[in-house]
Amino acid sequence: MSSEFGKLLRIAVFGQSHGKAIGVHMDGLPAGEAIDMDALYAFMRRRKPGANPLSTPRKEADLPIFLSGVENGVTCGAPLCAIIENSDQHSGDYAKLANTPRPSHADYTAWVKWGGQADMRGGGHFSGRLTAPLCIAGGIARQILARRGIYVGAHLASVGGEQDAAFPLHPTADLFDSIAAKPFPVLDDEAGERMQQAILDARQAQDSVGGVIECAAIGLPAGLGDPMFDGLENRLAAALFGIPAVKGVEFGLGFGSALLRGSENNDPFRMEDGRVVTETNRAGGILGGITTGMPVTLRVAVKPTPSISKPQQTVDLSTGENTELVIGGRHDPCIAHRAVPVVEAVTAAVLLDILLEGNYGTF
Amino acid sequence: MSSEFGKLLRIAVFGQSHGKAIGVHMDGLPAGEAIDMDALYAFMRRRKPGANPLSTPRKEADLPIFLSGVENGVTCGAPLCAIIENSDQHSGDYAKLANTPRPSHADYTAWVKWGGQADMRGGGHFSGRLTAPLCIAGGIARQILARRGIYVGAHLASVGGEQDAAFPLHPTADLFDSIAAKPFPVLDDEAGERMQQAILDARQAQDSVGGVIECAAIGLPAGLGDPMFDGLENRLAAALFGIPAVKGVEFGLGFGSALLRGSENNDPFRMEDGRVVTETNRAGGILGGITTGMPVTLRVAVKPTPSISKPQQTVDLSTGENTELVIGGRHDPCIAHRAVPVVEAVTAAVLLDILLEGNYGTF
Amino acid sequence: MSSEFGKLLRIAVFGQSHGKAIGVHMDGLPAGEAIDMDALYAFMRRRKPGANPLSTPRKEADLPIFLSGVENGVTCGAPLCAIIENSDQHSGDYAKLANTPRPSHADYTAWVKWGGQADMRGGGHFSGRLTAPLCIAGGIARQILARRGIYVGAHLASVGGEQDAAFPLHPTADLFDSIAAKPFPVLDDEAGERMQQAILDARQAQDSVGGVIECAAIGLPAGLGDPMFDGLENRLAAALFGIPAVKGVEFGLGFGSALLRGSENNDPFRMEDGRVVTETNRAGGILGGITTGMPVTLRVAVKPTPSISKPQQTVDLSTGENTELVIGGRHDPCIAHRAVPVVEAVTAAVLLDILLEGNYGTF
Amino acid sequence: MSSEFGKLLRIAVFGQSHGKAIGVHMDGLPAGEAIDMDALYAFMRRRKPGANPLSTPRKEADLPIFLSGVENGVTCGAPLCAIIENSDQHSGDYAKLANTPRPSHADYTAWVKWGGQADMRGGGHFSGRLTAPLCIAGGIARQILARRGIYVGAHLASVGGEQDAAFPLHPTADLFDSIAAKPFPVLDDEAGERMQQAILDARQAQDSVGGVIECAAIGLPAGLGDPMFDGLENRLAAALFGIPAVKGVEFGLGFGSALLRGSENNDPFRMEDGRVVTETNRAGGILGGITTGMPVTLRVAVKPTPSISKPQQTVDLSTGENTELVIGGRHDPCIAHRAVPVVEAVTAAVLLDILLEGNYGTF
Repeated sequence: MSSEFGKLLRIAVFGQSHGKAIGVHMDGLPAGEAIDMDALYAFMRRRKPGANPLSTPRKEADLPIFLSGVENGVTCGAPLCAIIENSDQHSGDYAKLANTPRPSHADYTAWVKWGGQADMRGGGHFSGRLTAPLCIAGGIARQILARRGIYVGAHLASVGGEQDAAFPLHPTADLFDSIAAKPFPVLDDEAGERMQQAILDARQAQDSVGGVIECAAIGLPAGLGDPMFDGLENRLAAALFGIPAVKGVEFGLGFGSALLRGSENNDPFRMEDGRVVTETNRAGGILGGITTGMPVTLRVAVKPTPSISKPQQTVDLSTGENTELVIGGRHDPCIAHRAVPVVEAVTAAVLLDILLEGNYGTF
Repeated sequence: MSSEFGKLLRIAVFGQSHGKAIGVHMDGLPAGEAIDMDALYAFMRRRKPGANPLSTPRKEADLPIFLSGVENGVTCGAPLCAIIENSDQHSGDYAKLANTPRPSHADYTAWVKWGGQADMRGGGHFSGRLTAPLCIAGGIARQILARRGIYVGAHLASVGGEQDAAFPLHPTADLFDSIAAKPFPVLDDEAGERMQQAILDARQAQDSVGGVIECAAIGLPAGLGDPMFDGLENRLAAALFGIPAVKGVEFGLGFGSALLRGSENNDPFRMEDGRVVTETNRAGGILGGITTGMPVTLRVAVKPTPSISKPQQTVDLSTGENTELVIGGRHDPCIAHRAVPVVEAVTAAVLLDILLEGNYGTF
Repeated sequence: MSSEFGKLLRIAVFGQSHGKAIGVHMDGLPAGEAIDMDALYAFMRRRKPGANPLSTPRKEADLPIFLSGVENGVTCGAPLCAIIENSDQHSGDYAKLANTPRPSHADYTAWVKWGGQADMRGGGHFSGRLTAPLCIAGGIARQILARRGIYVGAHLASVGGEQDAAFPLHPTADLFDSIAAKPFPVLDDEAGERMQQAILDARQAQDSVGGVIECAAIGLPAGLGDPMFDGLENRLAAALFGIPAVKGVEFGLGFGSALLRGSENNDPFRMEDGRVVTETNRAGGILGGITTGMPVTLRVAVKPTPSISKPQQTVDLSTGENTELVIGGRHDPCIAHRAVPVVEAVTAAVLLDILLEGNYGTF
Repeated sequence: MSSEFGKLLRIAVFGQSHGKAIGVHMDGLPAGEAIDMDALYAFMRRRKPGANPLSTPRKEADLPIFLSGVENGVTCGAPLCAIIENSDQHSGDYAKLANTPRPSHADYTAWVKWGGQADMRGGGHFSGRLTAPLCIAGGIARQILARRGIYVGAHLASVGGEQDAAFPLHPTADLFDSIAAKPFPVLDDEAGERMQQAILDARQAQDSVGGVIECAAIGLPAGLGDPMFDGLENRLAAALFGIPAVKGVEFGLGFGSALLRGSENNDPFRMEDGRVVTETNRAGGILGGITTGMPVTLRVAVKPTPSISKPQQTVDLSTGENTELVIGGRHDPCIAHRAVPVVEAVTAAVLLDILLEGNYGTF
């Protein structure tokens, strides 16, 4: 096992960047769920390269072909498999990488693990391109959740040190929609301008920048998740670290809470309209791995794109000599903004999986 | 499933803080592994309360009784079950909590999930006390790893904003041992003094503080782990979030890498004594989910102990009224230093599980 | 992993025959379920040795001690761990087995797998004694199911070639109760007499006999289970083969259906009181892995006890020489009748696990 | 989860009989394994319909297209996905089935589980056609095993009550090859003639017949598998029951052993050429769930094809009325002979999965 996650809803991603097709397999999806294809395409377009000057100009059709599991646009209960055919690839650009692993890419570790047989053209199975099928899965999950009043949204919290505003205590579906409609997914467009400038500066310098994505899920009932190793944090983190370039995951205040005193970090309970709520939500809607009913909030650290045009030091695996590498081809100076819908996708998929279990604490 | 983790090595933790016993079940442990009981007790003592004035004065024997899986001090292949009997509990201190959930504890979410039947005395199954059996499991895993030249160590990277030094690029088993031998697990004892003062200040203020733990594993071969959802980061994070109070997990530079440019974050490869190494290790020894052969490094954010003596706002679940809660009993003003061996334990257990799979990339 | 099964309800059995204790760990049990201890003891007594002259005279208290997960006789949501302490063991009887594996026991394979460290006194972890904790788990599951109108019962279908009557098309809870109340678990007491004589004859001949157990579950809704590899047959078989000495599992007519024509084996549908039923139930209540709503029926083949008093050929693993083995101690000439409640236990546990998932085909 | 199995090697089957494509996803396949495509096609041809007059005349190209995981005919480590496009389907033949479930098919249970949305044309996801992708997976596994001296073969042990000879105590790869080369997969061709006549007789009578398949695996080391719930029997049975129409699975003598005495069923150990062997192999090469090193043998009961031309009683789900059903289209009067390579495929896939774990009893 490796490129799979989920318990009752199993999601498996397959394909290599320059292979015949990439795709996703979903087993356990409920039957009778209509898939709004236009909405799905719109969701997927948010991670598409080439959408604006900040992204790589590679064109990808990226339109999914459903091989199974969907009849007349509705899930039929059987496992769903959807693929995206590969095209417009410039393998030549990557050919030279075979023996000279790109720093901070998976080229070297894949070579160690799989030997010379590893297909690492364009990053192979480790390519960011594999997040497209993830978005198919998550886009479908998102629609199923929305039908039940559960919404997942995300924004770019920071890029290159420039900060966006934070989500309010009670984010709404409309807020999520408004971010999704923007060419650059931020709350504060002025902050967004600064972030975009940081990206352009990095490109100018033949370099790249990282960023942080903040995601929230609203409408979840209290009582979801399990103690210790099967809570929301465990399951969300396990899946979120599957997004290429993610190096950190935190919930609520996360690492920030380590700087606070208990009296500053605790969320007081109070009654509101007959429901138990918390006045603040530093816990990110999760206590003991289980939802409180407040928004689930999380943040994901995305490292700067390792593919940069600047010359870098590496080794030639065929000769065992140190060598200099200049990566050609076209590369995103930042992938964090494109990863925003991917974080939503993974979050939605994990939440749907947990919801399918029911709140089986009592039966 | 909930209080379990692992694939070939399954570890399940059970028990409630004030129940008859707590314990751990390990299935898949290799046979023929001697358990050095003195070393195991010493390891467990590092998380024990009452070891110094910074901890709660509750006394716990915490000596494990092995019910199965060990014969003459050696694992016999059959599942191992070890328990710790509970004693010296002051249930009275907690009785009043039944209907007034403590802010930022799992009292409320457990009540929602499990109903009035939830046994939440002393935190019940969510108590930090459950980390004692985790230390049995991890302590055994640590010994098995050490026998194969793999060492896991951790230190308190910060408390209340006070910072310890960071691990060097190449930490050693001796360094881990020297930290483990200290009453306060830091690299820089002066920083440790400041941290301890921060804890005493918090206690003085009827408050608590959080902290960050940094952990490293050395001696791992390159090529361990799997792409996407079954990599080291996924599996370590999934387990580490099972430690009570953990709200963030990052690998290598983690969230710090989101502030850097690619040229600052990438780890150049070079040859050293015939082996491929990286000059820096910002990736924390993991690329594409797979080990590079450099030390695996991770950091874990521990929130401030939610149990504080200061009056807090909560609700009375029996009446639906807002109310004020004053938590009696004795509580740690900080649990981060006691969690240091727990982070080692979980890390060691996950790594042993992954090692048991072999590097099955090729067969 | 090995001695565990289940998906949302995880059941793990631990212990060795002559170790300190044997036990069971259950994670995922719903909260708020009262455990009728008297009923549980009565259920466990059905597999107890020494209950009648057909069984080994070893006395076992076999009363479970609940370490966790139960408060005031009610499940509290946290993982349940129950143990049975070992006593009255005659290790001496088994000492000589260490190097001379008993034919058709797991002595040899455990030795190959675990090396000299394997604790095989009395069969070690492979002992039939490990079915006692299975009965704790299954006995609890059975009570939870009964509360929802789902009943599981079994009888001894044959021993030594002597056949009991078959379950009727629509067995009832009362019928199950009446079998459970008998000293020998058959439908037709005259057939039971013949079976018991076959057992006594085998004992007289220093030999043993095998048997077949038929089990049924009633009250299950239609639509439970999943296609292909996660259907009822897959999950029940996977667990039932975990009972020591089981060598075959079949559903409905099973191997008998291979002898029939389609027109003889098909179950015609018809309406009855507004519900879809089948006129016959040769499918054993399962089509495509999914329940039809008719009784689920299955049969399990139990091989003759491999421990017989007759001299047998084996090898001395310490010398590599062929040798003759005479097994001392007291052994059951038949275990099939004692395995009847064990088959019920495993069946109930698997069904509860599947029910906890809900019929998540639609959501 | 549902149409998936395996632990380190995960195999997922997808597709509906009349959908766009069917296929298989394999995650965890070792890298660097050449796939002999001609041998794979030859293996798949053994289950193809239309190969002889005993099978349905539907033509299927059934040639797999590899979308990922294979480069230049060699596995590259990344997940493998292979599909078979559907064509030459006569949906019209099946259209009338929508509301009138075929007796002993999954039409009714799928309808209950998935509602009116279930795509049951031609059996949908429950169709025997889904065994074609299983043969892709198993055919690849078989090649990888053969490269390590492990061979899996099967024959038709009986059809319509006519018996083939049994495998000898020590079957060989050559014997497996010779059966695979025959148009009708039996050891004794005269018995094969009688079986084929039984099939033709059933077709003549607008009826069908069932059969039993016997499978063996040779070359396995001793010590593979785990106790209780994760042994070879558990894992093989769990997967084998995923083959449509399988209603029973037994190992070694299976149900036959229930008729024997211990002295007749036990396999005496003896030394042979310095190795421990058993003189007989009634246990089917498995004791305590773990391989003995003798051939693993198992038998699988296949029910008669439920689709028969004879009029049958069913219900109209749209009206709730009883009705008569005459199934049109062309159907196999027997599927047992076509299932022979499918049993080999599933057996090989499970064994490869277990082998990938290594014999991790000791480490």
